[in-house]
Amino acid sequence: MSGNTFGRLFRVTSCGESHGAGIGVILDGVPPGLSLDPSEIDAALARRRPGQSDLVSPRSEADRCEIFSGVESGVTLGTPIGVLVRNKDARPESYDEIKNVYRPSHADFTYERKYGRTAASGGGRASARETIARVVGGVVAEKILSRAGRIEIVAAVERVGTIETKISPDDPRLTRESVDAHPVRCPVAEIADKMGDLIRDTRRQGDSLGGIILAVARNVPAGWGDPVFDKIDATLAHALFSLPAVKGVEIGSGFGGVALRGSEHNDVFENREGRIQTRTNRSGGIQGGITNGENIVVRIAFKPTSTIALEQDTVTRQGEPARLKGRGRHDPCVLPRAVPIVEAMIAIVLADHYLRQRAITF
Amino acid sequence: MSGNTFGRLFRVTSCGESHGAGIGVILDGVPPGLSLDPSEIDAALARRRPGQSDLVSPRSEADRCEIFSGVESGVTLGTPIGVLVRNKDARPESYDEIKNVYRPSHADFTYERKYGRTAASGGGRASARETIARVVGGVVAEKILSRAGRIEIVAAVERVGTIETKISPDDPRLTRESVDAHPVRCPVAEIADKMGDLIRDTRRQGDSLGGIILAVARNVPAGWGDPVFDKIDATLAHALFSLPAVKGVEIGSGFGGVALRGSEHNDVFENREGRIQTRTNRSGGIQGGITNGENIVVRIAFKPTSTIALEQDTVTRQGEPARLKGRGRHDPCVLPRAVPIVEAMIAIVLADHYLRQRAITF
Amino acid sequence: MSGNTFGRLFRVTSCGESHGAGIGVILDGVPPGLSLDPSEIDAALARRRPGQSDLVSPRSEADRCEIFSGVESGVTLGTPIGVLVRNKDARPESYDEIKNVYRPSHADFTYERKYGRTAASGGGRASARETIARVVGGVVAEKILSRAGRIEIVAAVERVGTIETKISPDDPRLTRESVDAHPVRCPVAEIADKMGDLIRDTRRQGDSLGGIILAVARNVPAGWGDPVFDKIDATLAHALFSLPAVKGVEIGSGFGGVALRGSEHNDVFENREGRIQTRTNRSGGIQGGITNGENIVVRIAFKPTSTIALEQDTVTRQGEPARLKGRGRHDPCVLPRAVPIVEAMIAIVLADHYLRQRAITF
Amino acid sequence: MSGNTFGRLFRVTSCGESHGAGIGVILDGVPPGLSLDPSEIDAALARRRPGQSDLVSPRSEADRCEIFSGVESGVTLGTPIGVLVRNKDARPESYDEIKNVYRPSHADFTYERKYGRTAASGGGRASARETIARVVGGVVAEKILSRAGRIEIVAAVERVGTIETKISPDDPRLTRESVDAHPVRCPVAEIADKMGDLIRDTRRQGDSLGGIILAVARNVPAGWGDPVFDKIDATLAHALFSLPAVKGVEIGSGFGGVALRGSEHNDVFENREGRIQTRTNRSGGIQGGITNGENIVVRIAFKPTSTIALEQDTVTRQGEPARLKGRGRHDPCVLPRAVPIVEAMIAIVLADHYLRQRAITF
Repeated sequence: MSGNTFGRLFRVTSCGESHGAGIGVILDGVPPGLSLDPSEIDAALARRRPGQSDLVSPRSEADRCEIFSGVESGVTLGTPIGVLVRNKDARPESYDEIKNVYRPSHADFTYERKYGRTAASGGGRASARETIARVVGGVVAEKILSRAGRIEIVAAVERVGTIETKISPDDPRLTRESVDAHPVRCPVAEIADKMGDLIRDTRRQGDSLGGIILAVARNVPAGWGDPVFDKIDATLAHALFSLPAVKGVEIGSGFGGVALRGSEHNDVFENREGRIQTRTNRSGGIQGGITNGENIVVRIAFKPTSTIALEQDTVTRQGEPARLKGRGRHDPCVLPRAVPIVEAMIAIVLADHYLRQRAITF
Repeated sequence: MSGNTFGRLFRVTSCGESHGAGIGVILDGVPPGLSLDPSEIDAALARRRPGQSDLVSPRSEADRCEIFSGVESGVTLGTPIGVLVRNKDARPESYDEIKNVYRPSHADFTYERKYGRTAASGGGRASARETIARVVGGVVAEKILSRAGRIEIVAAVERVGTIETKISPDDPRLTRESVDAHPVRCPVAEIADKMGDLIRDTRRQGDSLGGIILAVARNVPAGWGDPVFDKIDATLAHALFSLPAVKGVEIGSGFGGVALRGSEHNDVFENREGRIQTRTNRSGGIQGGITNGENIVVRIAFKPTSTIALEQDTVTRQGEPARLKGRGRHDPCVLPRAVPIVEAMIAIVLADHYLRQRAITF
Repeated sequence: MSGNTFGRLFRVTSCGESHGAGIGVILDGVPPGLSLDPSEIDAALARRRPGQSDLVSPRSEADRCEIFSGVESGVTLGTPIGVLVRNKDARPESYDEIKNVYRPSHADFTYERKYGRTAASGGGRASARETIARVVGGVVAEKILSRAGRIEIVAAVERVGTIETKISPDDPRLTRESVDAHPVRCPVAEIADKMGDLIRDTRRQGDSLGGIILAVARNVPAGWGDPVFDKIDATLAHALFSLPAVKGVEIGSGFGGVALRGSEHNDVFENREGRIQTRTNRSGGIQGGITNGENIVVRIAFKPTSTIALEQDTVTRQGEPARLKGRGRHDPCVLPRAVPIVEAMIAIVLADHYLRQRAITF
Repeated sequence: MSGNTFGRLFRVTSCGESHGAGIGVILDGVPPGLSLDPSEIDAALARRRPGQSDLVSPRSEADRCEIFSGVESGVTLGTPIGVLVRNKDARPESYDEIKNVYRPSHADFTYERKYGRTAASGGGRASARETIARVVGGVVAEKILSRAGRIEIVAAVERVGTIETKISPDDPRLTRESVDAHPVRCPVAEIADKMGDLIRDTRRQGDSLGGIILAVARNVPAGWGDPVFDKIDATLAHALFSLPAVKGVEIGSGFGGVALRGSEHNDVFENREGRIQTRTNRSGGIQGGITNGENIVVRIAFKPTSTIALEQDTVTRQGEPARLKGRGRHDPCVLPRAVPIVEAMIAIVLADHYLRQRAITF
């Protein structure tokens, strides 16, 4: 297992370099009988694609998928689903200038140390382009989850650089529609505007920004997750930390919860109209690594994009001091485009645990 | 894969309930020829065991392991290592009072929802006792890592409740010895004293505390970690979130880094005496999911212990309102005992990636 | 995955050297709510144990298991089941004479080449003793299968050396009881007597015998098995070839079927009282790697035991010519004891595929 | 793991229906720095493709692969290799007549029972077309193996129907070239001619044939294979039984060896010019599941092709009696085309064990 497969029963295997021919995905363990149309994947890809607003990379890739196996007459067969999304606007030549220097905080140096070589163009697998496979997987994961009830997974930008807002994961107005209403993907319009301004300003300065995404999964049944190493928070953290630029993950109360006493932090149970629920949700929907039926709440910290236009110190492959000035067509802030990818990874994790739970429930 | 195995090449499989006969571990993928003595495991278990100071659970378990396979004449054979650590001070009867009510923020409710039943005594696998397996795995992991150079893994308590200190992961004075010098396992003596006082006060009040552990892994070679789903930060996060009570994980700059611009956050490369290093280490030693040779720096947030002596609201298994007053012998703050467990999980992750890297390096 | 775990959803992980402290097993993925008593495992172990008749190794090990996790009040919890079976009659000293020479057709030489060392006593993991773990797994596998209907798995000795009989897998008189009625475990009494005589004669001559075991699994539902690499015949073959001394496996018509034309070999479908069945069963119950509801029929070839009392040529570890005369307490023919082990492996494979199938069936 | 991935460290994941758009493969765990050109894969595909002689299916598919990731400038990057081979001569309409009846000994019935549906056209994944993925994997596996010495893997047709010959695996004249010299892929020319005649006759009669393939792997180092469940014979058997139409696998002496005594069967060691070797090779190169440095010798039984032109009894999906007369363009005997597929599967297994062994060898 060399890192390009995720999941135990619902399995996403991907391949593809940033500036190669395309991104390939094989989805295994998909139950038969689910409707699936390429246009659904294309619609999901449109939410992550560059060029969708003036806030993100201008690389213009109207990604279209080809489903070449596992689906017939619009319905899954139970056999593995193969998907290919071709790269259309790859420009490896624009990477010539970085061929001989290591980009700071990028993967050039570490890939070279790992493999003894580097993809001539761009960052190889350490590239946002690779996340296409996750979005493809997310679409099918949501199809699987549709069998488990009306699970909703929504992510939103809560912070960009120093501008932040608090979003309640329980607010029913937090929906994919309300999030997508603004290109920043922050559902609080006036804050979103400020974030947008900040992103444009920062790009103009040749610099980049990080931020925080909040995600919630609603209506997940209680009982999903596997003790002890595959607690659902552990597999969610694995999935989310596998995304480029992630430096932190919190479930429920997260780092803020450490200041509370147990008596303050504990989520006491109560019976609401015949259903046992918790009064508060500092657990973020997970207790002992298993879902408790409350909203699953996650926060993810993204570092500022490594590739910036400002000139930076670095060294050449030979270790000589050098100066590097990025060009390329990179996002000044990855968060707006990361929202659907975060949703996809959560869906993939949940779908896998759903199938696992089915196997042992008699 | 039902959650009780961790790792790809170096694999830790564990079993054992909190109040059953004992904790079992099978370690597979261990190279032959490593020295291993039961006393080394016992010494590591002593660092995590309850009853070691007045700050932790008084459950008195001088845990001793039995190695029943995989080692002969003190040397590993290459075959799987079986270890059994018997439970000696289990008192399932002290759990009678919780048999019919769900403990807030504990796993009673979720285990019941998952399995349709509950272990009669204690939290089953959702118990600190289960972490014995991790410590056992950690000892052998460090043996494996000893072949890769002088890797050092050190964790320390950085925060307890509202008391915190900043510890530099680069400070050579941060060692296991300096951390273990104080029962709180915070290496800054005067802060450690305050933390100790707070823990004792809080226990007296029947309440509990959370906190933050900082961990560093030094001298890890560049090039470990597998793109894209098994980035080393992703597998570290998986491992650490699998520990009881963890609600957050940060690598390098973490959540704090989101306020920085790319130009501030990037770790520029420089040549120091022939070795390419980064000037700063906001990446926490990992770029593109692969180690870069700098210190790996992780912070882990632990929630306050769920089990408290204060009376709490809850419901019975039948959904009737109830009041619960914990007794048991629980830790008012898990952090001091969590330090060696965090170190063990990091060692397990690194050992696995080390073996993976060996497989592809010619 | 280093070879000591078998299965995807129902997972058997084992450890233990032939002459170490014992054999350990962790069974993961076991659904909750199954009854399980140590006496059931002990009864299964009694069927494989040495010393049960004058036909097998006199090593007297009345193996008794300890279940130390995953079961409470005689019912599985859903958590991993840990089992330890201690070695009681280990005599590593009796292996002194082979310390410096390689036993022909044994694993001494290959283990040394693999691990750069050898267990000082006996064959390490390449030992019949290791099969205890399989029997333990088989008991639990049959518990799981009991949820899928009245599946019956029966194996029998069809051939010992040059003495053979034809057993019809469809004959309802072929049951575990009828097989166990004779210590040779061939259900045809007069042939079994001859086999017994041959085994005793051969032992007296210091030599050993091989043979063939037939196994049938009845009432397995149609639809189990996973294309394309985990066809159920492929996982069965994997399981059976993992047993010591196995040199051949056939499903259905096997090697004999190659002489037939397609028109002779094909199993035509017919409707028998509302159920679609095949007129013949040359497929051995498996078509395209998936069960068709007919009897699964397997034949397994075991080579003659490597360890013999007759003197043989060999070389020392230094490569000097040597003569070796076995002593030890070995089986002149492994087949009678292999019968329950074959049944266990088939049960383990079927239980795993059963859980896999549950995961995708809505 | 839903059956479409094979291997632990070198991993082949495949997808693709017989009459869909194409066959996709993702190869993970491939070390960097291996030369790889699409023409090498195409050449291997040409050896398995239909239409290459008058003995095999006339379906004319001059398969050409597209490598769309993991390779740059003809050299592997260490990242996963994605390969797509498009289906060019699919004719799903020719399957109309079988839409409503189950083909005897085919997978129509079992796929329907498994998935609750059937691919409208052809056998879905239970198709010879799927084996393209194996050939692709085999090419890369051999590249990996090239780092371990001059390993040679050669398969040959030893028997077709009732015509057979004995081929010595140790004969240096048994090479891929000598095998490919005749379209039957039997290296004994006069026997091959007879086999060819028989195949042509049988096709004319609308019938089909089975047979036996012998395979040998030479110069495999001692020490590969993982006790106890992943013995190299167990993983070979798994790989070979995963091929369509396989009903039996033998290693070394196989079923024939059961008639021998241990004193006759044992392979005694001797020192030949400083290298410890065995005098005979009844073990087939594997002892205790680990290679001993001798030739690995395998025999594989293939049943006669299920699809025949002769009319057969069957039932409709509704269970009504029916008659079926195959048309399609099927092989009267799969063995000539199976030869390179068998070689590929053996290469895949060996490459995986090679990488596994590297991980633990210091």
